[in-house]
Amino acid sequence: MNGFTYFIPTRVEFGRQSLEKLADLLIKGGHKQLLLHYGGESAKRSGLLDRVLKQVEKSGANYTALGGVNPNPKVELVREGVRLCKEKQIDFILAVGGGSVIDSAKAIALGAKMDRDIWDVFERKCSPDQAVPIGCVLTIAAAGSEMAGGMVVSNAEKGLKRDYGSECLRPVFCIEDPTLTYSVSRWQTACGIVDILMHTMERYFSPTRNTELTDEIAEGLMRAVIRAGRVVCENPEDYEARATLMWASSLSQNDLTGMGRQADWATHQLEHDLSGMYDNVSHGAGLAVLFPAWARYVMDDDPERFCQFANKVWGLSDNCADRNALALGGIQAAADYFAALGMPRTLKSFGVESDRLPEMAEKCSFSGTRTLGSVKKLSCEDMLAIYRMAYEG
Amino acid sequence: MNGFTYFIPTRVEFGRQSLEKLADLLIKGGHKQLLLHYGGESAKRSGLLDRVLKQVEKSGANYTALGGVNPNPKVELVREGVRLCKEKQIDFILAVGGGSVIDSAKAIALGAKMDRDIWDVFERKCSPDQAVPIGCVLTIAAAGSEMAGGMVVSNAEKGLKRDYGSECLRPVFCIEDPTLTYSVSRWQTACGIVDILMHTMERYFSPTRNTELTDEIAEGLMRAVIRAGRVVCENPEDYEARATLMWASSLSQNDLTGMGRQADWATHQLEHDLSGMYDNVSHGAGLAVLFPAWARYVMDDDPERFCQFANKVWGLSDNCADRNALALGGIQAAADYFAALGMPRTLKSFGVESDRLPEMAEKCSFSGTRTLGSVKKLSCEDMLAIYRMAYEG
Repeated sequence: MNGFTYFIPTRVEFGRQSLEKLADLLIKGGHKQLLLHYGGESAKRSGLLDRVLKQVEKSGANYTALGGVNPNPKVELVREGVRLCKEKQIDFILAVGGGSVIDSAKAIALGAKMDRDIWDVFERKCSPDQAVPIGCVLTIAAAGSEMAGGMVVSNAEKGLKRDYGSECLRPVFCIEDPTLTYSVSRWQTACGIVDILMHTMERYFSPTRNTELTDEIAEGLMRAVIRAGRVVCENPEDYEARATLMWASSLSQNDLTGMGRQADWATHQLEHDLSGMYDNVSHGAGLAVLFPAWARYVMDDDPERFCQFANKVWGLSDNCADRNALALGGIQAAADYFAALGMPRTLKSFGVESDRLPEMAEKCSFSGTRTLGSVKKLSCEDMLAIYRMAYEG
Repeated sequence: MNGFTYFIPTRVEFGRQSLEKLADLLIKGGHKQLLLHYGGESAKRSGLLDRVLKQVEKSGANYTALGGVNPNPKVELVREGVRLCKEKQIDFILAVGGGSVIDSAKAIALGAKMDRDIWDVFERKCSPDQAVPIGCVLTIAAAGSEMAGGMVVSNAEKGLKRDYGSECLRPVFCIEDPTLTYSVSRWQTACGIVDILMHTMERYFSPTRNTELTDEIAEGLMRAVIRAGRVVCENPEDYEARATLMWASSLSQNDLTGMGRQADWATHQLEHDLSGMYDNVSHGAGLAVLFPAWARYVMDDDPERFCQFANKVWGLSDNCADRNALALGGIQAAADYFAALGMPRTLKSFGVESDRLPEMAEKCSFSGTRTLGSVKKLSCEDMLAIYRMAYEG
């Protein structure tokens, strides 16, 4: 087990009616000038935004609204939010939505304390660690951004999607009411399930040895998510399964399932440049296509880990002399589960053009200047090989 | 799953050499006037106290030392600490030790902000929620007080041991270096293992249904602790096993393994009055004797949960038509594991007198004014019955 820092100060208020605690949270935090950040029309239509506004009014805070966050949140809207924060002297950002809204809010929160353009952060030109505090009302179980210090933002102009993380970006509170996710579409629910699983899998596949406790937690979380995912696809209003997914989304990305281990993250990075170039690709769907290709490409570097994954997570018998077959069986089980959720199996099916794969690998490798992953260090050529494997599935 | 609040802002610095981060933590927190709280001579002898003092000096803080905390920390020493805090205008309490030292520090931290006697808190005469901030250098994997908001203090004069909890008591940081636990005696190590397991078991046995994710995490933690416990008994300097126990001690008591469930806590409460009356009883050893008696007494109120415990935690086959035998098998497996660690099996072996058991039940029931537990609500008569079962084992 490696040494680690564990610091997750986000207060989670979980359960039916937890939204009713929002006014108190705002009052206790002393937040007076809010930026209310949200996505499209669904938050308005569902009445959620009205419920949130009632709580904001009850708290006595003023607010400025900024909606319009799309999946793969854009730096242009972030810049607008930064401008508003500076103009209105915003002291708190309330994100109402899922990972995209929360990530957009984080970028705004960071930009509001900076003198230079926010995109510089994503190009690693500076490393700020000050931000306006953030709170969330979570509406999708997926990204886990609600307890995490990281964020991902897209730059359409450059065709790039980039991440950044800082302790100052962990939200101070998150309201999690599973009933708010009943109306999430089957497609988005499925993308979320893949994302939740992948956040733990990125940490589970690792060169670090002797991480038994973290392994147990990670495997248990994955099993619970796999079962709850099946239930939710049958019955979107199953409270218990929605609750499992929502809590798992937070735990899967708040670092708990990776403590003491070096993570991998190659699949996520490969996906960022996929959906960075193809805006129609949902993050979760991109991950579902890329993971099996990545896993088959790297499994020989850690066959026993893939066998453990097959056995402990997917229930394949460990009494299998052919370890290669067992490892492959686990990867196939994951691929089949993703497909059963309705995920595509190939990059082709997204409309990705095969002759653009070299460009994708070029971008993902920062023009050959970085490698990805820790199970196997991937060069630009490796990335291209994985994209090609994923192209046909 | 029930609604819940999850708020665990303690920063954990985990790993070899994590003590080297202490000075920075003190500087970043702006802590200037420390109360350095510790136990007996072992912290001095091992050189740990000198290493801590070097860090304190490096931070530029002043300190007042208060040692002498014993297992089952006493309210008299707490009062002395409160006096020192007020006199020296202490702004931070640094606890160097295990659960007893940390609990004593918590009581001092609360008392330092109060105008009345600290024992009033434990008699529920007041409910303060302000405390001097606390940090820990952990030396024993056991109580999990390092990430928790609760504490337990003894009043020798009254023969009572009482608890109190508040969010303000969660330490702001905890330094966890598993090598600091190499020198913990086999007996204390074993008591700690029982305590770690029991903190999750108290939350695992519950009337709440549909807590799959929390169940998976709890079961995984218990399996990892059971295995690591066996390793550490053979080799006290096995870093990985010591690390598993240390991290598990924190996670087992920080609320993670109980999220969404009503906990039981009867075994702990029964133990508090056992070691409150018999100061020679180590908390973990008392729990090891009382749990099997409690479990056999209440199992008919939730047989399937005890079967799940037998199957998932102790590996007994679930293909067992006799559910009663399976449930009993799990309890027996736990009892045998505790015995294999070197724990006693009977109250008698502590020197407890059987004719004092009614007095113990009387105290534990607050003279018949409270019930204990949630799996089965225990009256004073039930408590006495359990003490009697535990007497002979």
